[in-house]
Amino acid sequence: MSVSPLFEKHKETLNKAIEASRTREYWTAYPEMPSPKVYGETANKDGENAFKSYLNKTFEIDQPGSEGTVGAEKSPYGFDLGITYPKADIDKLVPVVDEMRNSWGKADVDTRAGVCMEILDRLNKRSFEIAFAVMHTTGQGFMMAFQAGGPHAQDRGLEAVAYAYEDMKRTPASAHWVKPQGKHDPLVMDKKFTIVPRGIGLVIGCSTFPTWNSYPGLFANLVTGNAVIVKPHPGAVLPLAITVQIARDVLKEAGFSPDVVTLVVDDAAAPVTKELALKDEVKLIDFTGSTGFGNWLEDNAKQAQVYTEKAGVNCIVIDSTDNFRGMVGNIAFTLSLYSGQMCTTPQNIFVPEGGIETEDGHKSYDEVVAAIVKGVEKFNSDDQRASAVLGAIQSDATMARIEKYSAGDNVLLAPREVPMEGFENARIRTPLILEARDESSYKEELFGPISFVVKTKDTTDSLAIVKDSVKNHGAISFGIWSSSDSVLAQAEEVACESGVAVSFNLTGGVFVNQTAAFSDFHATGANPAANAALSDTAYVSNRYRVIQSRWHPKG
Amino acid sequence: MSVSPLFEKHKETLNKAIEASRTREYWTAYPEMPSPKVYGETANKDGENAFKSYLNKTFEIDQPGSEGTVGAEKSPYGFDLGITYPKADIDKLVPVVDEMRNSWGKADVDTRAGVCMEILDRLNKRSFEIAFAVMHTTGQGFMMAFQAGGPHAQDRGLEAVAYAYEDMKRTPASAHWVKPQGKHDPLVMDKKFTIVPRGIGLVIGCSTFPTWNSYPGLFANLVTGNAVIVKPHPGAVLPLAITVQIARDVLKEAGFSPDVVTLVVDDAAAPVTKELALKDEVKLIDFTGSTGFGNWLEDNAKQAQVYTEKAGVNCIVIDSTDNFRGMVGNIAFTLSLYSGQMCTTPQNIFVPEGGIETEDGHKSYDEVVAAIVKGVEKFNSDDQRASAVLGAIQSDATMARIEKYSAGDNVLLAPREVPMEGFENARIRTPLILEARDESSYKEELFGPISFVVKTKDTTDSLAIVKDSVKNHGAISFGIWSSSDSVLAQAEEVACESGVAVSFNLTGGVFVNQTAAFSDFHATGANPAANAALSDTAYVSNRYRVIQSRWHPKG
Repeated sequence: MSVSPLFEKHKETLNKAIEASRTREYWTAYPEMPSPKVYGETANKDGENAFKSYLNKTFEIDQPGSEGTVGAEKSPYGFDLGITYPKADIDKLVPVVDEMRNSWGKADVDTRAGVCMEILDRLNKRSFEIAFAVMHTTGQGFMMAFQAGGPHAQDRGLEAVAYAYEDMKRTPASAHWVKPQGKHDPLVMDKKFTIVPRGIGLVIGCSTFPTWNSYPGLFANLVTGNAVIVKPHPGAVLPLAITVQIARDVLKEAGFSPDVVTLVVDDAAAPVTKELALKDEVKLIDFTGSTGFGNWLEDNAKQAQVYTEKAGVNCIVIDSTDNFRGMVGNIAFTLSLYSGQMCTTPQNIFVPEGGIETEDGHKSYDEVVAAIVKGVEKFNSDDQRASAVLGAIQSDATMARIEKYSAGDNVLLAPREVPMEGFENARIRTPLILEARDESSYKEELFGPISFVVKTKDTTDSLAIVKDSVKNHGAISFGIWSSSDSVLAQAEEVACESGVAVSFNLTGGVFVNQTAAFSDFHATGANPAANAALSDTAYVSNRYRVIQSRWHPKG
Repeated sequence: MSVSPLFEKHKETLNKAIEASRTREYWTAYPEMPSPKVYGETANKDGENAFKSYLNKTFEIDQPGSEGTVGAEKSPYGFDLGITYPKADIDKLVPVVDEMRNSWGKADVDTRAGVCMEILDRLNKRSFEIAFAVMHTTGQGFMMAFQAGGPHAQDRGLEAVAYAYEDMKRTPASAHWVKPQGKHDPLVMDKKFTIVPRGIGLVIGCSTFPTWNSYPGLFANLVTGNAVIVKPHPGAVLPLAITVQIARDVLKEAGFSPDVVTLVVDDAAAPVTKELALKDEVKLIDFTGSTGFGNWLEDNAKQAQVYTEKAGVNCIVIDSTDNFRGMVGNIAFTLSLYSGQMCTTPQNIFVPEGGIETEDGHKSYDEVVAAIVKGVEKFNSDDQRASAVLGAIQSDATMARIEKYSAGDNVLLAPREVPMEGFENARIRTPLILEARDESSYKEELFGPISFVVKTKDTTDSLAIVKDSVKNHGAISFGIWSSSDSVLAQAEEVACESGVAVSFNLTGGVFVNQTAAFSDFHATGANPAANAALSDTAYVSNRYRVIQSRWHPKG
């Protein structure tokens, strides 16, 4: 097999990624700052222009089996994108993809890794364009749309490539086997081990993190030799359409059929995901979204390996602190960031009824609650900063939820409508904070900027509730503030028993709802919120199988 | 954490096992020859005595929650073992196991690996005792019972430990993360990664390879920190009872609760497997047995990760050969070994209607068939050799199947009853070979010494049938004889597309139904016969999860 030029071009980055995932020290392949020095003086403007060039047109994607168009994305900043996409006839598309995937599946691992790395590299170069696409579909503020939608998503894609690459390379391509037979001649066999993909991987995107949550599955499938059908959420198609287009370009240039990566767009009126998910050719499914649909996939798509990230109810526990101000500031940012539309945003804040100890002495329950409420309010008092951090509300459902829960008599902090220059119709709201009245009110996920303060007997009580909640309702993040090592040890025990990652005493620039690729695992696969983690060997190793041939060497 | 003395004792073997699984060159930890030089001058006699000491008694195993006894094993060599076992009350046992597993789950990986290796080492030292137990439950001939039931099973157990150990060690126990912030101080975090087991692993044994098929799941679960409940087939309890006893001894000596490994024996009248498999505490299930029960587990035990090896229909294709005699001899041994009661024994033999080319010129279809029939007949003509290789028929169902199919009008070779000195009531039969009349007759698994010769148009036709058969009915082995490289390439293509391992031109001492640990994967996980392979990363990496804690270092 010839050496792949794309592999040679990117192998140093790949090796560093593997190494980083093993040390779990800080490393990134793609700079997170939208700096002209890194991305070019005109990158921002070029990206915005590229984004604008898509508006009110049909997105060109020349894949087979399309008829008519579909698409009705709206920017949460208050305008229709007006983009339509070719509408795939999946009964026509799937057989073509299933045929076209063969030469890709037979390419050697290095070649496939090279192609994946080149796609990631080109995605990186178009981070601004993708950032605008992410911003105006998800509602994320620009900085977050750039970072989470661009470099951080690319890092997560690379991380999946690194894990899969290393795992595939664990098995040698061939072996020479010599078994001694005492006085007799040894038994000798030559063996060949072939990496064989599963088939077609279906990657189902979500409306809030279309790229970040899709890239791991997309690239894990691709590098292991599978074809990928990308099925974006109807509300956030463009970032994935651009992604698919780039992937198709690179595949074609590398001599493969572009149909190894295709796009299926649908709308709420005629959803196709269920039909796609049950196709016999679909052997892998990656899904981020509701618990209901995730469970449906797990129960019904029996022909496929199903990786799901579903709803969770994230908790934070306040026990004590030696940096009260830092704690409050950290929580305020955490609750505000992207208006809580992250699967990692805490929903329930547990505070002991007797209050807490701080560096300034005791603070009562009411004082702690008031400080948090005031902290969030103050953090969002400047309209410009607020809109940049909050972003806009992605869905009508979240807007309706905010309205419904704002009408209760347990409101601690009411949401405020934040105006944004240049986007008069943007729907931007500051967080809603409620006082929990009974367990049933706060134990289910209320997606969006809605959180509860839960008064508990003490921290032991808080931790018991958290443990039960994570086990039964799932969670992706968990934070605790305590100046007691034994309480932290107890919290770690709860985290291990219920299966959720925990952050201790965050008071600076790291937030419980953020994870860093190569160092932090996203989700654990150990509670109902997700059946896999991004990324580990379990996430990649069953996306392909090894088929062995053996024979006695001649002569 | 203190260094584990058991780990120190065995770490060189573990490292060699990891290395062997990576090179896939020949290596074994446990000598396969039942030689007095290796196992001791009195090992054979001691083992036989130990076996006999169990007969007509209650097997002592002091685990909690037992009431009464159960057990009715019969030796296929014609006598009742008369052994009973404590009958577990699973509603009492499971909660105890679930509690007792905690300290085991928290032990460090090295400690757990040391305990697993010590168990394997003691199993090895008791290979003769286990061999007699395997022989007189499964019906395997003594040599096979020793090798497959002893050292080969131990190797497969070690292989699972090696994969799991390496995968767990891939994630560091801790990391120091420093993220530059331009002119500002970097963000610094300390991170801890804890390996957390799933819970209780249920290992469901089969009647033909009680140790070989159970050890991978048993040891994969154990080393990853799970407790294990071993549920043997009612017909082959003793080998696993001895195994559990040894595991309990080692656990106890190492300071853990012996209840980390327990035994649940039932009988056909009151089976408990379904109830056990649905217990919420059971998070992992390893099963070898019927397709029906395997599918039931996959569909119903939703709280668990389920690894199944089910029925398959193995095929061999005869295209041409430059060693006709070697081929026939190899096939004769393959069909005879343990009377085809291996999940890897070929059932269907595809021969082109136009015959084949050989080193002696053309042989017609009839000549090929006659040679195979004669080869099998001749191979088993000597009673002593025949009984040693054939072993005895394990189950009444297989006996009934032989009788039923012997009564047809398509018999090419009728089974012969083989007498065995010392075991007058042994049920030993030579293989039954049938001529296939229609597809439906040979496409389902007929477990035991029953095979079909299938006449095809040509090898292309043979391969097309094989591909379809593997895809739809599953297979664990596949063999082809051809002197054409292009036909072999075609066969390899079929193997990769349908997902089965393939052996080419076996004419010597390697057989299509045998695999060697560390070099050959057993099953592929890519066709209906099994959803996993023994062993690879996919088989081990989801038996535990990683839970992360992180915090800013103080000062």
